[in-house]
Amino acid sequence: MGAKEKRNLTLVPDYKLWFERDGEYIFGPGAYAILKSVHEEGTITEGAKKLGMSYRYAWGVIKKIERKLSITLVETFKGGTEGGGGARVTESGLKLMELYYSINNAFNDVLESSDKLTL
Amino acid sequence: MGAKEKRNLTLVPDYKLWFERDGEYIFGPGAYAILKSVHEEGTITEGAKKLGMSYRYAWGVIKKIERKLSITLVETFKGGTEGGGGARVTESGLKLMELYYSINNAFNDVLESSDKLTL
Repeated sequence: MGAKEKRNLTLVPDYKLWFERDGEYIFGPGAYAILKSVHEEGTITEGAKKLGMSYRYAWGVIKKIERKLSITLVETFKGGTEGGGGARVTESGLKLMELYYSINNAFNDVLESSDKLTL
Repeated sequence: MGAKEKRNLTLVPDYKLWFERDGEYIFGPGAYAILKSVHEEGTITEGAKKLGMSYRYAWGVIKKIERKLSITLVETFKGGTEGGGGARVTESGLKLMELYYSINNAFNDVLESSDKLTL
């Protein structure tokens, strides 16, 4: 194997960030993407669709976190001028997204400014 | 759920960092810990033992990465003054450890300097 060690070998770094409480997994990239999408689209149906997920799956992810933390992340409402109702990410939900985005962003900065992973 | 949203809720961030090549997982925290332990202890047996792993498991992890990258990470040798031989992490192995440590360290700095995750 000696000779092979001379060639250039470049690796690519990747990571997963998540939030825990009392050692229990609470919130990660999947839930972040769902909240963000619901926030941008204004309904759970459209938010889920944009990510290629079913309404049921996306709603399940949100509900699971809400149960674990006993908070509301997304409020749904009926009516409005279009009559279809919609979903609104709560203040707690927006705060959670902001905290996640901020650390994720700083991690990306680390990777962008780090040396090439060449052996 | 409204009233419950008022209480303080603090989450703890955690992450996993890994290196890939061509989209394939190559090197993560487990392998880093093994290389570090072998490097510090000087033998695979002692390095594995310190981590509560079997020799076979630790060696398997190292060999798998070596096969994927076609490089040598750990060289074993016989003899020496104690007669028992030992293991030496190669230059490529040390470089890999160094690259991983450096990013991991920067990630930890991000987490230490970030705001408390309070909703």
